[in-house]
Amino acid sequence: MNKYSYQDYLDFNLKISDLNGISSLLQWDQEVGLPKESMDGRARQIAGISGIIHELYTSQYYRDLLNYLENNVDLDKTQKLNIKLSKKDLQRKICLSKEFVEELSSAISNSYSAWEEARSKKDFKLFSPFLKNLIKLKKQEAELIDKSKEVYDVFLDEYDAGLKSKEIKIIFEKLKPQLISLLNQIEKKEKIDISITNKIYPNNKQWDFGIEILKEIGFNFNAGKQDISTHPFTINIGEKDIRVTTRIVENNLNEMIWSCLHEGGHALYEQGLQSQTFGIPESEASSLSVHESQSRLWENHIGRGLSFWKLKYKKLQNLFPENLKDIELNEFYKIINAVSKELIRTNADELTYHFHIIIRFEIEQLLFSNDFNIDDLPEVWDELYFKYLGIKPENDEKGILQDVHWAHGSFGYFPTYTLGSLYAAQFYEHAKRNIENLEQKISDGDFSELSKWLKVNIYEKGRLQTSEEICVSSTGESLNSQYFIDYAKQKYTEIYAL
Amino acid sequence: MNKYSYQDYLDFNLKISDLNGISSLLQWDQEVGLPKESMDGRARQIAGISGIIHELYTSQYYRDLLNYLENNVDLDKTQKLNIKLSKKDLQRKICLSKEFVEELSSAISNSYSAWEEARSKKDFKLFSPFLKNLIKLKKQEAELIDKSKEVYDVFLDEYDAGLKSKEIKIIFEKLKPQLISLLNQIEKKEKIDISITNKIYPNNKQWDFGIEILKEIGFNFNAGKQDISTHPFTINIGEKDIRVTTRIVENNLNEMIWSCLHEGGHALYEQGLQSQTFGIPESEASSLSVHESQSRLWENHIGRGLSFWKLKYKKLQNLFPENLKDIELNEFYKIINAVSKELIRTNADELTYHFHIIIRFEIEQLLFSNDFNIDDLPEVWDELYFKYLGIKPENDEKGILQDVHWAHGSFGYFPTYTLGSLYAAQFYEHAKRNIENLEQKISDGDFSELSKWLKVNIYEKGRLQTSEEICVSSTGESLNSQYFIDYAKQKYTEIYAL
Repeated sequence: MNKYSYQDYLDFNLKISDLNGISSLLQWDQEVGLPKESMDGRARQIAGISGIIHELYTSQYYRDLLNYLENNVDLDKTQKLNIKLSKKDLQRKICLSKEFVEELSSAISNSYSAWEEARSKKDFKLFSPFLKNLIKLKKQEAELIDKSKEVYDVFLDEYDAGLKSKEIKIIFEKLKPQLISLLNQIEKKEKIDISITNKIYPNNKQWDFGIEILKEIGFNFNAGKQDISTHPFTINIGEKDIRVTTRIVENNLNEMIWSCLHEGGHALYEQGLQSQTFGIPESEASSLSVHESQSRLWENHIGRGLSFWKLKYKKLQNLFPENLKDIELNEFYKIINAVSKELIRTNADELTYHFHIIIRFEIEQLLFSNDFNIDDLPEVWDELYFKYLGIKPENDEKGILQDVHWAHGSFGYFPTYTLGSLYAAQFYEHAKRNIENLEQKISDGDFSELSKWLKVNIYEKGRLQTSEEICVSSTGESLNSQYFIDYAKQKYTEIYAL
Repeated sequence: MNKYSYQDYLDFNLKISDLNGISSLLQWDQEVGLPKESMDGRARQIAGISGIIHELYTSQYYRDLLNYLENNVDLDKTQKLNIKLSKKDLQRKICLSKEFVEELSSAISNSYSAWEEARSKKDFKLFSPFLKNLIKLKKQEAELIDKSKEVYDVFLDEYDAGLKSKEIKIIFEKLKPQLISLLNQIEKKEKIDISITNKIYPNNKQWDFGIEILKEIGFNFNAGKQDISTHPFTINIGEKDIRVTTRIVENNLNEMIWSCLHEGGHALYEQGLQSQTFGIPESEASSLSVHESQSRLWENHIGRGLSFWKLKYKKLQNLFPENLKDIELNEFYKIINAVSKELIRTNADELTYHFHIIIRFEIEQLLFSNDFNIDDLPEVWDELYFKYLGIKPENDEKGILQDVHWAHGSFGYFPTYTLGSLYAAQFYEHAKRNIENLEQKISDGDFSELSKWLKVNIYEKGRLQTSEEICVSSTGESLNSQYFIDYAKQKYTEIYAL
């Protein structure tokens, strides 16, 4: 008779996942409607449940359980891999002392407040000392987790197992000249007038259209739902209880449509994971990069594609005839794909977006090198924006202070956005090769074969395959940015008559 | 140096309250929008957090803490009372074994399912064996909690500390003949036509009006909020984060208005409690009866009063001119106070309501006597309805099976509804005696003095005073049903020209 069984491992992780879902509900509720005066109590509740989860997760019981299963129980290949990944996750937690976790967590909290103030005063100097302290602590953290790796690679490993900065460099270096050349060609052409998207689009009609889009692409409203928040996000409350949020701006048609498709893509991935073994790696997403590939596949390859609007544009016109009745489908398609060099990452188009990421990645390399003075950051930021996009922010708010990631202690997160786009292009191209007349099917509102392709090739792999492994097994080769370049060239050549 | 301090007691109860708030959020979310397929996962989450709370709450640490503070630490009078009440609460939990709690909880769960089925098939016989088993277990529970008391009084004590069934009998016996006489007089008069309340009232306008009412009476939307659910309820998520829900029926103006005022009254009480010592008796509501007095004071004495509609009727007319433009204020006032003998408790008017409660109380007395056969229940029910209201349900669904309380194992709960009304009348009369021109102030939209009176006399007493003590300290005498009778006589004499 075994002391522990594999079922004990499943039960334990189900319990942890249920508690994580509870914690997610507390956060979701905070973002979608918690009144201001109740924020302090909510912070206390979140801290309370986090403490309970941490204590349970790092308990001697779970360590013993994993070690016992690894060494004493006859497991199949899949079970072994689950245990191996779970051990790695646990190791990442228990190598940090309680004191260190508290110090880091308090530093993040202070740095976040400082970032908020600095941002409102458009002054990086107010944030700089907190960022310095945070980087010092993050270096320590990386060392505690894995001394044998480069600091930045330790962070990458958390978001995308096995990913290394030198691989990203190679990918980005190949991407840069091709993007620049494409942007230069586009710049010579006439600018597309997008003012129509800033007319008045009543909120309730936008909301209804967003729900319709989500239904169309297959979001399961019998298990999850959509709500409104300041910043759109996707969160996992239960096995299939995935909540997406959107933001609706009355004089901006774009906000709602792309956030629905983007978050919808994340949600389809989460709802598409297997749920029989909820809480263990085989039922989790592979990586942030693959997650982002799913949001971008639906947002860009489907949502900014002509086929999708052949299906939906008539409906949109009928909803907003006063704005759209004189705009033909082809014109609308150009408008939603207009390219423009802007200062703010989250407003960027499909092409310039990658320079926002490349700039952040190059700066993160500097941040964790030993000879960089953080006070120089705004200057470096502005120089890189000028170098790649030919623009300079008029102040720190529109420059170095625009994103929350660093204030939250998240370094190595940004590159997964661009990798996600590259994976999306590669996945989508192979889906097209494997599904007869996919574009026509999309125009007919038939997403069934695409959904099935994604399920079999991506969702159902769980976390048992890395990004790289999923890419090879579903497309026959490693990540190759040429897919994105080819897609972009074809799309923008047509739109801008290059 | 003391082993434990009073602060430890405060900290511990704050932690428990935060976890209870988390559990409430899970329930709230379940009622206001959780999609069907996610219900099973939610049940698991609620069970998980309940287990954590139970383990913590009944831990040796807390028992030792309370005993130590009681015996070894110099406490003031208020502190002593808090500790005494907390010990009583804890005792009620720990006198029941884990096995017994599980048996009872499973019996309740089965009885609830059986009740649902019996209700849909309109057949009490399907529910009867489960009710028998539940009553057997509830008798055992009462014995385990306090052998020295009558079974029914043990239940009452949980809802309204110190309340005894013989006191309720005296109160109800005094109330009955007076109510019957009033009802007989009303029956001789012409029926009021209320068909206007069943015209179409668009949902969004009803919602807006409900929010306006809640703001008007002082609900703090900076800390709590309102949502939609199938059955209206009030729930406590955090110190002041009180959530109310309402139900909107398009062809029924009444549902939303009275549920907003009723739940709003509960919420004002909860938001009005002190919050510095969140989680201990001094920051809790006194009893279910006093809680109900607050919902009914706002629902009936304010919300069904002429003064309130002098303030709000114009607005209501402007919102729904097609329905209300030809209805004068006085006519509207009569319509919302029409008396009618109906089978369903939750649809009852202010007068007949009490017979629904008296009938349930009299039946509960039988249920816990030794010589009653539960199979006779539908017959007894129908006889009592005929005796008091002269009507008989055509089937069990509209009779004995209409309420969920017994299926949930809640016995002794119903009387607190009528006691709440009686307290409300007594409190409101004394508020009027103490606040100059209160009715005029209400018509002017000035609720400040009433709110202050309720805060000082009721909210701020917390649970350190029982219902009875609050009643004596704020009105100078024990609960006296004459206040309600006087109020009702005056109101209905005017409305029906008796």
